[in-house]
Order: sequence, then structure tokens, then C-alpha cells
Amino acid sequence: MIKRIAPEVEVIDITHGIPPQHVLQGALVLANTVPYMPAGVHVAIVDPGVGGERKPLALRGEDGRVYVGPDNGLLLVAAERLGGIAEAVEIAEAAYMLERVSHTFHGRDIFSPAAAHLASGVELMKLGPALDPAGLQRLEVPEPAVGEVRIRATVLYVDRFGNVQLNLNAEHLARVGIEPGARVEVEVGFERYFASAVRTFAEARTGDIVLYEDAYANIALAINRGNAAQMFSVRVGDELRLTSR
Amino acid sequence: MIKRIAPEVEVIDITHGIPPQHVLQGALVLANTVPYMPAGVHVAIVDPGVGGERKPLALRGEDGRVYVGPDNGLLLVAAERLGGIAEAVEIAEAAYMLERVSHTFHGRDIFSPAAAHLASGVELMKLGPALDPAGLQRLEVPEPAVGEVRIRATVLYVDRFGNVQLNLNAEHLARVGIEPGARVEVEVGFERYFASAVRTFAEARTGDIVLYEDAYANIALAINRGNAAQMFSVRVGDELRLTSR
Amino acid sequence: MIKRIAPEVEVIDITHGIPPQHVLQGALVLANTVPYMPAGVHVAIVDPGVGGERKPLALRGEDGRVYVGPDNGLLLVAAERLGGIAEAVEIAEAAYMLERVSHTFHGRDIFSPAAAHLASGVELMKLGPALDPAGLQRLEVPEPAVGEVRIRATVLYVDRFGNVQLNLNAEHLARVGIEPGARVEVEVGFERYFASAVRTFAEARTGDIVLYEDAYANIALAINRGNAAQMFSVRVGDELRLTSR
Repeated sequence: MIKRIAPEVEVIDITHGIPPQHVLQGALVLANTVPYMPAGVHVAIVDPGVGGERKPLALRGEDGRVYVGPDNGLLLVAAERLGGIAEAVEIAEAAYMLERVSHTFHGRDIFSPAAAHLASGVELMKLGPALDPAGLQRLEVPEPAVGEVRIRATVLYVDRFGNVQLNLNAEHLARVGIEPGARVEVEVGFERYFASAVRTFAEARTGDIVLYEDAYANIALAINRGNAAQMFSVRVGDELRLTSR
Repeated sequence: MIKRIAPEVEVIDITHGIPPQHVLQGALVLANTVPYMPAGVHVAIVDPGVGGERKPLALRGEDGRVYVGPDNGLLLVAAERLGGIAEAVEIAEAAYMLERVSHTFHGRDIFSPAAAHLASGVELMKLGPALDPAGLQRLEVPEPAVGEVRIRATVLYVDRFGNVQLNLNAEHLARVGIEPGARVEVEVGFERYFASAVRTFAEARTGDIVLYEDAYANIALAINRGNAAQMFSVRVGDELRLTSR
Repeated sequence: MIKRIAPEVEVIDITHGIPPQHVLQGALVLANTVPYMPAGVHVAIVDPGVGGERKPLALRGEDGRVYVGPDNGLLLVAAERLGGIAEAVEIAEAAYMLERVSHTFHGRDIFSPAAAHLASGVELMKLGPALDPAGLQRLEVPEPAVGEVRIRATVLYVDRFGNVQLNLNAEHLARVGIEPGARVEVEVGFERYFASAVRTFAEARTGDIVLYEDAYANIALAINRGNAAQMFSVRVGDELRLTSR
């Protein structure tokens, strides 16, 4: 669709790997990867509410990047981490949509056409009425509970290696005394494992359970050369408890 | 291969997600998506008969689009829906193939080179002898049996959300009195479920079974925010019975 | 990352389908496919040793192609089959990396930036100190044991059709008298099957077990329109015994 409307625009396809309905995972992957991409019009769609009340949204960040997608919180983690929202509109102008808009595929009928027009130079404000950034839908990113020696963390997502990303950063770990080199007890349900806090996989042996700062400065749990999500039977939203030992 | 022969040609990669051997699913996905693409040379390959009697085919539709792929019916649902076939040839001219043609990978050795040459301006008729469009292989798309209150339908394909596309359109449903808002009994094997006919997922609650017109004007069965194919244990070619209640 | 550094460079995305940690499969897929690609800068990353002792590597082949990836043997099967290595360097110069290099994602932080700079015209030698090609890491590709009537072969990889690629070529088969048309006993663990050596799938009936020369001149075992890896329960590294019957 983009190429039909704007043949001169270059399309970079980042991922089709977000599991269906996982808006939070989509939002976090977007926020993690956008800083490494060229500035442009960023289309992101994880849209279980398609065809309903949720608005089609286009917004421009303070840094000049433009985002297009559903108003379900998907775009806002990225836009707010990168400096906040300069202006937002509801995509409502039929001239910038496909002629016949379906009830179930707004990626094709609304978001891609809007992105193509924006990338071709159409002004954001032409797409529809302005929205107050404060009124946009926001996702609740679960907060960890950090005690004196123990953290209760939540699984944010699982990557294709089976590595388990937690809602933690290095500072949370430091508060309970977990630094690279430390031994960490990991409780998952009624099971208990021992992990090593490491800087890199190369510090661990094959099969070791490791806790590390990933390439986006998030803390993740992995099995060196193995699949941690499978071994621990954890899924997005599950809780883990980490204790320094 | 295309970029080696025609570096100036732009390649748009639509999907590698058709399951192996599923020629009919490939044909339907092609027919559903081509209308939304820029006109060009459309290469499609699902080719269980590679290396055998089936001919490599190139054809031009009445609308000017060009199609390249095996003569096993894959290309014809699209070409015929979009106005019919203007001319067809067997790709036979060695000058437009890879020098050494393998027995098992004509995508690389025949179809991509032919497409690259066509996209660079080579005339269709130069690729090999003309074929009579009436003699090309056609797929049998299963027809539904529509009774007074009941439809026997067949699963055409299952998408990555687990939504089950049936060989039905809104008119078939209307004939047995199923309109948006209706309650529908769905029989799969010896199991029986109740679905709601809806216009959009947003009309249903999480977990509801819904029957809806998808973005290509086909009727599909889904579970709102769930996986219908898994729950019903259905696969391509399976039959379902729908009754208005 | 590549587009940010070198917006004018064209990126061709070949595969993200190599299973995690499978360096040998990655090396073989690269060696099989590179000869069909336009010459360029070829980035390949399967990198279980990321963050450890293994060096980031860039090298130029005698044929002018440039390769970028980890020094774990991944690049060398391709480079050596295509004429050998002209020069090699360790990527060490911070000016050609991302400013902050993570411990776990050198694809983003080191390899893609290096490839972008090389594709933009930066000389290989500017990226870091020269390495002796003889000292680079090499993979051990398992050799078959070819007897008088029997071959012991190893599974090199399994493709998405479930076809099982063996460490054999047509010459190995000929040495034990297996030519197209021959009947072959295949032993897998304690199970025994009969396969036909064929030139093409079209020579076999649906469900037949076939042994054939694939499109890269490797010998593979398949089930016509079925999934051989699933039926035989074999995985990469497993052994099979083939006997002419």
C-alpha cells in the first residue's frame, strides 16, 4: 500500500514477530529499536481493538520522528522516552485513507496510506482533528517491587532465543546488592533456581542460568546457549522473585 | 537472483508464510493481495511439482500486470479475478534462465531470472512459446453447499492469528438468514459451538466466537483475542456446518 | 543501523531463519547462497560467543566480495569455497562502531556499522589490525565414512520443508553404487526405511522417501510432499547409514 501511494518512499521492515494481541511487547520493542533507526515515519500496528472505539493515531515527537498506529498505547512508550509528543491527530480525513475501509485491517486501509502520505510530505494536521497528548491511551508497564534483599519482577517479553526480559534495570538490581559476579536465587512459581549475574554470555558455561543487562539496558534472564522461557515455563506477565545470595 | 540480473529493479517481498505444498492457499493469498499492490511483475511460487511435467509460466493480465510462476493454478485465481489473461507463455528460452537449472529450485533458476528480465523490459513473448490461456492448469476452489437454513462450508486457509477463512461471502450467509447480529450454530465434526455474526471484533467480548466478513470480503470464523483454528482443531480442507439460530 | 550510517546503501535481507547457536548451518547456508547474490558486503551473524574472546571479523575474498561477522568460522566456508581470503582484519576501530557497544548485540553495535562503512567505501584495513587468514577460526564440517556398499552420513541441516541435508555429494553416492533410480536402505537409529534415489521429486509418488541432489549439489533426504525430519525424528548432527540395495 505504501509503495502504491508513495513509490519514491523507502520502506524498512523491522519485525512481524510480535505475537498477536501483545500491545505491551510491541510498545517495548518499538521503544527499544526506534532510537537505532533513521528518523522517519514509524508505523506500528498491534491492534486487537481494530474496528472499535479506539482511534487511528498519528503523532509527531519533539525530536521530529512521526508515529502512526492505533491509539492503544502502542506508540507512546517510544514517543515519550524520546522526548515527548509535540502534536497528535486522529486520522480521520478520508482523502488519506483507502477508498473502502474494512472493519478488520486498518494496517492496510488507514495506517499504511496515512504513513505514505506523511512520508511524501503531507502535514500531520491535514490528517484529522488535533488530539490532546494528555488524553491518549497509555499502557501500564508493571513496576517491580524492590525490597531489602529481594525483588518481585514481571516478565515483559520473551525473545526468539527464549531469553526472558524483566521489568528491571541495573539500578534495581544494585539496590538489592546484585552486581555482575553475584549469585542470585530465582523463584518461579514453586520452583527455585540459581543464576549468575554476568556482564556477557561468554562469562558463563553452556547451560548456566544467567541474569544480564541486555542490549537495551533492560535486565533479562537467560540460559547460556539454551532457552530460558521453555525451561522455566514462563510467559509474558508471569512473576519471578530474585534474591541475592 | 533478481538483483543480480536487474540491479535497478525494486523487489517487494510480500510473504514467505504459505505452508509448503499449499497451492490453493498461495493462490488465494495472491488473489487477495495483488489488488492492493503496485502493478508490476508478480512472482509467486508454491511448487510441489517442480522438476516434473508442469510448465514454468509467465502471463500478462488484461490489466497489464505480469505474473510468473508454475503452471499449477497458483497464478490464475488472481489473474482471472483481475480481468483475465491477455497472453501466456511457457518460460523455455535458456537465455532468460540461470545457466545451470537445478531439478528442485526453479524459484532461483527459472522464475526469478525470468521476472528480472521482464521487469527490465524484455517482452513476454521472448521467453518462450505462447500457451493457450484456456489450456492452463486451474485449481478447484471448493464450493459451499447452501441449503434453506444451513451451509456446509470448507476451510480455505488459516492465518497467523488462527482465524479460519471459509469459502463463503456475505451473500451466502444472507441466503440462510445470517446477518450481522445473528446467532449461528457452528458444527465441526461432532462438536457444536455458538458464534455471533459481527461486523467487527470490537462488537464481541474477549473469548467470543465470531463470524465476520474479513478485509478481503471473505467470511471467516475467529475467536476474539484467541486462536479459532486451535480451539476447533480445524485445518485447510476441513468442513464446517453453519446454521442460523 | 546500516541505513542510518549509509542511507544510500541497498540492504538485501536473505534470511533470519537460522536457528539460534547453529553456526555450522549458518556457514553452509551462507556458502550455498552467496554465489547467487550480487557481489557486495555480506553480513552474517550467528554468534553464541558474543561479548567473549572471539573477534569481530571483516575480510575480503579473492573474488572481491567482503564479509563481516564473528570470527567463529561462520564466514569461512563461503569465503574459501569462492576462491579464498585476500585479506582479513579484526574490527577494532571505535570510529566505525556504535558509540556505546553492548555485551550482547554486536550485530547492531559492531557488525552493521562496520558493514555500512565498508559499503560506503571505507577501506577494509581502516577497521582494525590485519589478521593472518591462516589463524582464523574454522568449523569442522563432519566427513562421511564411505565404505564399499555403505555410507555413514551426518545431518548438516534441516530446511523449512523438513528436507534433511546430508554431508554428501553425488560422488560419495556413486562410490557405493547409488545412482538415480537406485533403491537405498536408510538406517536411522534402530529404524530402517527404503528410499529411492531420484533426480527430481516429480519422479516419486506422494509419500515416497527420496534421496536427491539438491539445488546446491548436496545430497538430501526427503519425503515427497511430506516432512522427512519429522518422520525420521532426526536433528542436526544425527547420523544415518545408507546402503545400496
